[in-house]
Amino acid sequence: MAFNLDALATVVLDDSIKGIPFGAKLGFADVAAQGWNMLAGDLPLPAAVIRADALAHNSRWMQRFVAERGALIAPHVKTTMCPQIIARQIADGAWGVTVATVQQMRVCRTFGADRIILANQAVGRAELDAIAAMVKAPDLDFMMIVDSAAGIEAAAETVRRNQLDRPLQLLLERGYPGGRTGCRTNDIAIALARQIRAAPELRLVGIETFEGLIKTENGSPDQAVGAFMDEIATLFGLCANEDLFESDAPVITAGGSSYYDIVIDGLARCGARVVTRSGCYVTHDSGLYQSAHERLQAKTGAQDGLRRALEIWAYVQSIPEPGLALLTAGRRDCGTDSGFPVPLLLSRAGARPQDLPAGCEIVNLNDQHAYMRFPIDLPLAVGDRVGLGISHPCTTFDKWQIIYLVDDDYRVMEAMKTFF
Amino acid sequence: MAFNLDALATVVLDDSIKGIPFGAKLGFADVAAQGWNMLAGDLPLPAAVIRADALAHNSRWMQRFVAERGALIAPHVKTTMCPQIIARQIADGAWGVTVATVQQMRVCRTFGADRIILANQAVGRAELDAIAAMVKAPDLDFMMIVDSAAGIEAAAETVRRNQLDRPLQLLLERGYPGGRTGCRTNDIAIALARQIRAAPELRLVGIETFEGLIKTENGSPDQAVGAFMDEIATLFGLCANEDLFESDAPVITAGGSSYYDIVIDGLARCGARVVTRSGCYVTHDSGLYQSAHERLQAKTGAQDGLRRALEIWAYVQSIPEPGLALLTAGRRDCGTDSGFPVPLLLSRAGARPQDLPAGCEIVNLNDQHAYMRFPIDLPLAVGDRVGLGISHPCTTFDKWQIIYLVDDDYRVMEAMKTFF
Repeated sequence: MAFNLDALATVVLDDSIKGIPFGAKLGFADVAAQGWNMLAGDLPLPAAVIRADALAHNSRWMQRFVAERGALIAPHVKTTMCPQIIARQIADGAWGVTVATVQQMRVCRTFGADRIILANQAVGRAELDAIAAMVKAPDLDFMMIVDSAAGIEAAAETVRRNQLDRPLQLLLERGYPGGRTGCRTNDIAIALARQIRAAPELRLVGIETFEGLIKTENGSPDQAVGAFMDEIATLFGLCANEDLFESDAPVITAGGSSYYDIVIDGLARCGARVVTRSGCYVTHDSGLYQSAHERLQAKTGAQDGLRRALEIWAYVQSIPEPGLALLTAGRRDCGTDSGFPVPLLLSRAGARPQDLPAGCEIVNLNDQHAYMRFPIDLPLAVGDRVGLGISHPCTTFDKWQIIYLVDDDYRVMEAMKTFF
Repeated sequence: MAFNLDALATVVLDDSIKGIPFGAKLGFADVAAQGWNMLAGDLPLPAAVIRADALAHNSRWMQRFVAERGALIAPHVKTTMCPQIIARQIADGAWGVTVATVQQMRVCRTFGADRIILANQAVGRAELDAIAAMVKAPDLDFMMIVDSAAGIEAAAETVRRNQLDRPLQLLLERGYPGGRTGCRTNDIAIALARQIRAAPELRLVGIETFEGLIKTENGSPDQAVGAFMDEIATLFGLCANEDLFESDAPVITAGGSSYYDIVIDGLARCGARVVTRSGCYVTHDSGLYQSAHERLQAKTGAQDGLRRALEIWAYVQSIPEPGLALLTAGRRDCGTDSGFPVPLLLSRAGARPQDLPAGCEIVNLNDQHAYMRFPIDLPLAVGDRVGLGISHPCTTFDKWQIIYLVDDDYRVMEAMKTFF
């Protein structure tokens, strides 16, 4: 996988962007030399920071986890849309990158990505023509998803309309009843696979699914996700037996950030190249994926697991009642779809952060405020800084154009840009 | 109020930004000449569009509403953070602009705003020094909020540290028990007002509150909000009687986007300059504020009211089960804090949009997908376009760097930039 950060060289940061200090105007290469330190008050708050050690650890941890089990990873970069993070994932051995939209694909191409999975069925003419324009570059290994005859026909028509000299590579999406996209049965899927096989403009190179939203009973996903993986493996076998794949190494790709262990286990014996697509592991979180990871560690015995890397820092702006603090961060700064952020750390007057005691809880968010309940014996003051953990990194990343990479002392090592 | 869009002249749009067509690279002045039409497939979807006629109507409507009642408006521009929209609000007669953060203030200053209310207590040293740097410009009439002795002392210290040659103008914030920021009683507030009056670095110029989150019984806010406005009016009178205001025309500012009619009525007789701060009116919505506006219209008899201006358009990407469509827009594209988006319009193959029938409903959102249930007799197809209304514009605006101003035929008239 190729990837480079050359395209960042011309980007200028200025203080019209949330999180950039007042008066600053500089390029990415000049950020480290500013000597900014979050604890010293050099950054306006709220600010989003990523702990460098945890990020590096997580990237290596996941690469090792999949490699030890014979799988590959094409991390879903929709999570971060941050080229500087993607570059680390690739340097650590990612097989490719996964994207959700053509805009995300375009950004990855700008930074030189040469193996891209579009994990959605593209349907608009503008989107399909953009894909065709990018696929004309011979260095690009590109796969995209279809789950319907309409999607297959649109893909074939795109090849003809754009006079592409090679077929589009498709992954057939299998879903499950009550789920998101994807064929609901293997019978439906097989019929579409035959249709792809018959189209000279198209090439079936594998099966795709997304198991991350499967409802689990009693919090134990093994049975439900495992049974679904059996169906996926069966579909792969049926397609292989009918010689429907036009690839030397057909792929099964699955695996969000919750159940990738079950995915890899469930698909290990079916002869496919297994490509996981987790995205959230790279920063991990303090909610949804922390819980999922505790289950995975208990089951697999995986040691020295993923670490929380992403924190949102805010000021205590007001303590209008005993035990209620309003913080200067809100739902425009932290994702809330998987739970409110979690108060973790307190820094007073620039001091090294201490763990907040039990009983600190975010009980509500407005656009620009968080309501934190705290024990009345905690000597909290207006102007103190609070570090929040988040649940589900995707919807926090997209609220920031710039996230700071910091060392253990919260010194800014790098400004990292997102593309949303 | 001054405001100009000169600073947009150097901004370049390119296809790394969600919503910009593949391959495009252009300035704002060149957008109209592209002849882009959303219905013709010229824009990648999802795309956010604002109907030009509705936007213009709403801006004028609100200005007339407040002017007829003897009030002023300093619209909360945190809603849109879009200079092109703010310019219209000011051209239509806005008295000033309201912001939530120093970054928002900075953006408004970049575009020349010369009367700014910071509707939050600034507490960080970096934030306060940035304010001081901006306030040194003699053309700026600036007011900010305090609700504590700590906030007052920080403001005074800022004046001293930065050797400002004029006092900082403060608005004292009154809140209510169980609410957000602000003093909980008039006794507390009066004590702070005296403290401000005694500080040579500071000048009390009015009272501020935010009533928009007051819990109402039976959906009728008149009594609860009205009673709170009585307390605000009382506080204003107490401060005036003690000569605590250092202004020829002290201000009471209140009024979110739900109850501004009750605010204006409740404060009309207290002798203050009443400044409302609604932000969401300018695009209105299809949820929270639509309901609030129906109440307001029923009560005030206001005619030809606010119109829905903001829509998110997406493709039908998949119909994996009868009556279930997956759309190419998710919670990264639409705010969800006040309800899921509302399916309103359907366009097939570029045809003029038709109203969707009853029974179409968004039942879930993922990051990049919306789950729409629809009546099985609706002939919906993969590739159709669906127009979504949203609830609470603030948290949709912040998900887009570019929103298109369109005419009634969805031709792009302008690309409008947000600053988050």
